[in-house]
Amino acid sequence: MTHPRDAVQAAHRLIAPDIRETPAMLLPGIAAAKLELLQLSGSFKARGAFHRMRRAGVGAAGVIAASGGNHGAAVAAAAQALGVAAEIFVPAISSPAKQALIRRFGAALTVGGATYDEARQASEARAAATGALVVHAYDQQEVLEGQATCALEWERQQPGLSHLLVAVGGGGLLGGFATWHAAGAATLVAVEPEGCPCLAMALQAGRPVPAPVGGLAADSLGARQVGALGFARAAALHAAGRLVSVLVPDAAIAAARRRLWEEARLASEPGGAAALAALLSGRWAPPPGARPGVLLCGANTDPAGLA
Amino acid sequence: MTHPRDAVQAAHRLIAPDIRETPAMLLPGIAAAKLELLQLSGSFKARGAFHRMRRAGVGAAGVIAASGGNHGAAVAAAAQALGVAAEIFVPAISSPAKQALIRRFGAALTVGGATYDEARQASEARAAATGALVVHAYDQQEVLEGQATCALEWERQQPGLSHLLVAVGGGGLLGGFATWHAAGAATLVAVEPEGCPCLAMALQAGRPVPAPVGGLAADSLGARQVGALGFARAAALHAAGRLVSVLVPDAAIAAARRRLWEEARLASEPGGAAALAALLSGRWAPPPGARPGVLLCGANTDPAGLA
Repeated sequence: MTHPRDAVQAAHRLIAPDIRETPAMLLPGIAAAKLELLQLSGSFKARGAFHRMRRAGVGAAGVIAASGGNHGAAVAAAAQALGVAAEIFVPAISSPAKQALIRRFGAALTVGGATYDEARQASEARAAATGALVVHAYDQQEVLEGQATCALEWERQQPGLSHLLVAVGGGGLLGGFATWHAAGAATLVAVEPEGCPCLAMALQAGRPVPAPVGGLAADSLGARQVGALGFARAAALHAAGRLVSVLVPDAAIAAARRRLWEEARLASEPGGAAALAALLSGRWAPPPGARPGVLLCGANTDPAGLA
Repeated sequence: MTHPRDAVQAAHRLIAPDIRETPAMLLPGIAAAKLELLQLSGSFKARGAFHRMRRAGVGAAGVIAASGGNHGAAVAAAAQALGVAAEIFVPAISSPAKQALIRRFGAALTVGGATYDEARQASEARAAATGALVVHAYDQQEVLEGQATCALEWERQQPGLSHLLVAVGGGGLLGGFATWHAAGAATLVAVEPEGCPCLAMALQAGRPVPAPVGGLAADSLGARQVGALGFARAAALHAAGRLVSVLVPDAAIAAARRRLWEEARLASEPGGAAALAALLSGRWAPPPGARPGVLLCGANTDPAGLA
């Protein structure tokens, strides 16, 4: 059997020329941090998008994706870089900044439905008609392995972190981290807004179940149900005592976002600051001797109002 | 005689616990970049402020500084960290964002005069009365050596860059870079806005001379006359053919600032994007085989309008 890390290393070799090695730094008085919000297309999603497209290959019908916005921007960016057509479906709650970004990368954009899940259904109907390659926002093996390259890079940059705080939407990023850290000593702290608790509810139920979608970060973390692949990997780590599920209120997300700007001049979107919010609000407290690291995963926001 | 690099290495050992090691990254399709805009207080100025204060020592009268804004914020931040009082003088053109930042770090702020130079005169009169330690914005040996630690760090992070693009205001940062790179192969590209050309005019005149102060980046790069220390070091490199002076129009600075946000989600202030503007606008074109690096040096801006 292939070690899970081998697949991630292979993914990294495949997409390294496409993506950015985003920097890591120590935010003094706060934590170690990986600045994945500086990634091409403004979020980690570019990793999974490139990996899915490079691995599966794209035919004449191009690619299609549904997204809260960040995944759509990433697929559009990857399609533009690879010279193929892209169709992106986003729900009405997707922010104007994200819709403009998707258009700027040259994709055909369809806005419709109240939630990501409705946009996904529309995109699947369209994909069945056109034969375009579906790039799922989180629940595909190639997507998970692409996101896992972020964990690989970070471990090289800041080795020895004991707890990695990662925001969770549909579980693609978390599933990637759980793949890379399937063995080893690091604990994953999986952070969700109280308004979008699909992983927390799934861990409680023992399987993916429908969950509410709402609040400040719904446009990036608002999945109706956690993906099966990401859940399986997260649940395995959870059973082993190496994954903690944490919920944070919107006020803590807003405060974390402001603090990132005030102290480090980083403009995060709400979902991108959720992991930090768990640490700053005390919803997750590092045990004695811990060396926590926070993943800042998205910046597709209008920064007006930060100053 | 002590090698200039020894003094910089000693400075780095002294202030490393105070400052941030800001990250460097490759901005694909653009250049290597050091993200010094993520430094404590929002600009490189924290390096010189801490080094001056740690080296000279601060008495009961505290510290005093005149500034377009960034140096004042840095001195205020350093004073707060070291537990001493700070008085900061800024001209009326200093941005509201910078004035708020200085106050947030707990300093006493005096706003007055039309330019940095007038604020400096007011601060010197006040310093003569109080006996506070003067932390000059650029023309002090300890300040130059502090800024030079940025060049030291960058060389470790991205070795082998052939051309380093650095914005110039009063010449403290450039003087620091010229100190670290006094020997070696790197060429410094010293970038000024057309509206604030104090180094270009001094190189032409053979000595520091009064220059106009105006335009988009005047609040960070608007020195009336380049500092004597920085000029001496820059002129020596210029005579050796290892320093190029470049002027950029405001439109190029504004475009560089927008591109930094659009492509990398970095919120730079105008002065912080001036070095990049030289490259993007073609005012400075890399020779064949060059490996240029751009220093992004400040982010004390209201990011509204970037999206």
